Amino acid sequence: MWKVIDEVLSVFDKIDKNNFLLLEENILKSKNIFVYGIGRSGFIGRCFAMRLYHLGFNSYFVGESITPRFTKNDLIILISASGKKSQVIEIAKICKREKGKVLSITLNKKNQLAKISDYSIIIPIKKSIQFGNSLFEQVSFLFLEEFIQYLVERHKIKKEEMEERHTNLE
Amino acid sequence: MWKVIDEVLSVFDKIDKNNFLLLEENILKSKNIFVYGIGRSGFIGRCFAMRLYHLGFNSYFVGESITPRFTKNDLIILISASGKKSQVIEIAKICKREKGKVLSITLNKKNQLAKISDYSIIIPIKKSIQFGNSLFEQVSFLFLEEFIQYLVERHKIKKEEMEERHTNLE
Amino acid sequence: MWKVIDEVLSVFDKIDKNNFLLLEENILKSKNIFVYGIGRSGFIGRCFAMRLYHLGFNSYFVGESITPRFTKNDLIILISASGKKSQVIEIAKICKREKGKVLSITLNKKNQLAKISDYSIIIPIKKSIQFGNSLFEQVSFLFLEEFIQYLVERHKIKKEEMEERHTNLE
Amino acid sequence: MWKVIDEVLSVFDKIDKNNFLLLEENILKSKNIFVYGIGRSGFIGRCFAMRLYHLGFNSYFVGESITPRFTKNDLIILISASGKKSQVIEIAKICKREKGKVLSITLNKKNQLAKISDYSIIIPIKKSIQFGNSLFEQVSFLFLEEFIQYLVERHKIKKEEMEERHTNLE
Repeated sequence: MWKVIDEVLSVFDKIDKNNFLLLEENILKSKNIFVYGIGRSGFIGRCFAMRLYHLGFNSYFVGESITPRFTKNDLIILISASGKKSQVIEIAKICKREKGKVLSITLNKKNQLAKISDYSIIIPIKKSIQFGNSLFEQVSFLFLEEFIQYLVERHKIKKEEMEERHTNLE
Repeated sequence: MWKVIDEVLSVFDKIDKNNFLLLEENILKSKNIFVYGIGRSGFIGRCFAMRLYHLGFNSYFVGESITPRFTKNDLIILISASGKKSQVIEIAKICKREKGKVLSITLNKKNQLAKISDYSIIIPIKKSIQFGNSLFEQVSFLFLEEFIQYLVERHKIKKEEMEERHTNLE
Repeated sequence: MWKVIDEVLSVFDKIDKNNFLLLEENILKSKNIFVYGIGRSGFIGRCFAMRLYHLGFNSYFVGESITPRFTKNDLIILISASGKKSQVIEIAKICKREKGKVLSITLNKKNQLAKISDYSIIIPIKKSIQFGNSLFEQVSFLFLEEFIQYLVERHKIKKEEMEERHTNLE
Repeated sequence: MWKVIDEVLSVFDKIDKNNFLLLEENILKSKNIFVYGIGRSGFIGRCFAMRLYHLGFNSYFVGESITPRFTKNDLIILISASGKKSQVIEIAKICKREKGKVLSITLNKKNQLAKISDYSIIIPIKKSIQFGNSLFEQVSFLFLEEFIQYLVERHKIKKEEMEERHTNLE
């Protein structure tokens, strides 16, 4: 009936649950958390960066007006299906040069981005009826949303605290 | 196991399937299709506007550098959970004044946005364990992704055609 | 010879120099400084918000992923030629309700935005050969750039300090 | 008195006037005109792309939701002071590979971007009291604004025509 949902569920079953711990550990020990991606992966990334901020972390989306300097105490989370886009690779290289941590969310461990990254979360997609990387973007979005909920529960973050960090300028 | 996915699925079951026909009919008969939303709803909206463009429609996201004038031959799709945000309401009012069509995706038929709109797609959420309007955003995103896949299949749009409209500047 | 430059210079001569003190005083006593504007005024505003951040202030551009809650200790700087755009007016109203300070940069003291604002910096344009509000945007941009230079000199902010706050992710 | 204005004027005097013809010729013979830049150069670029659109050209800012494929019939205008930013260089390389035209606005002819580009408009800045590339951004902005006015006058484009292409969704 719902073809997209069916595809999403079939991929979700194969995601390694340990990725939550990997993400959590890296986020908790970093001073600033940067998120980046291009096109639709970037829009997904902005959704995630915003919620991290509501949770109380110093998160930023690369390319927005207010973005600090990336240093060795920081983490960058790069979202890229192919792991080949030059714009993303170049950002990853800068972060490695600064000796910070690079964590990528991508389709496989063999692409250029995964090879540069300290850690990779693999979204294991074999095939899809959908155009482009839609399935990757859908699964990445829901995976990050599950992770936010996981963080909220694990650290007992109250909705009121998050509400205080949510902008009222809208 | 997956709490977000579970919530998403439980809402999806209650969405009216006729909404696909409503969206399709309005998109097909409009000259330009504008999409708008604030915060995370806006990021979801940008994902949708981009895919509509790949499908061959004249779509735009309100607020970007290149946005034409909205006229009576146009459609605007507004994504807002509460249907109360002043920024979204003001845009809806302008579109009504110009005598174009306003279609909103929102939580219920009783809010201010739904009352102004020509059509409303209701995402029927009763309650959620998640913060803010996360569940609304997740369901809206996947609903629009299902709709894109529906359009692709119904109008037999080839991946190669879509690929030609996908930017290579990334 | 240079028609735009000529127009800009003729307006610049009539700007009240006390506006620097007004801006400075309000920025120094605020916890967070928000900047907002629509279209080209928004792009000018982003340039300004970014430099304020480099100077060491907690500045934000409304609508970006990372934007905190506006409170009574905060300042918003609204850039709008006509002072009539509903999107800007609505943001100004929220800020007044929260009892923070609203400072607008606009064409005259009689428009709706100026009336809501605590302070207005008037860009005194009588007429222009240019389209739309181009002259307003040019003068506002250069005025804010002059103000940044004024702040740098007055507070003896070193280029090295600013460089440390400038992102390296580009 | 006005230190920024003084710096801007001193650079403006040295800009080659033939650059207007170069820009005009390339814009007129291209199907689509893409504009790109990072940070403040990007905000300046968005101001320019928007006005080109008002003038009636098919202009786009790279990275926005609606951006078509770059082809051999297209022009990209890249704004970068240093001409070294990897993100900009990578975009320039893609455009050269597609056999379209690359025109850069930059500080000198010797940097990597200028070397890749088909044409370069040099903003001849020797030194500046200002932070970063502020002076470059100011001069580039005003130069492009002068160019818009030049185009309007030369092609006798009426304000009413431009107004019809200006969005009313704000």
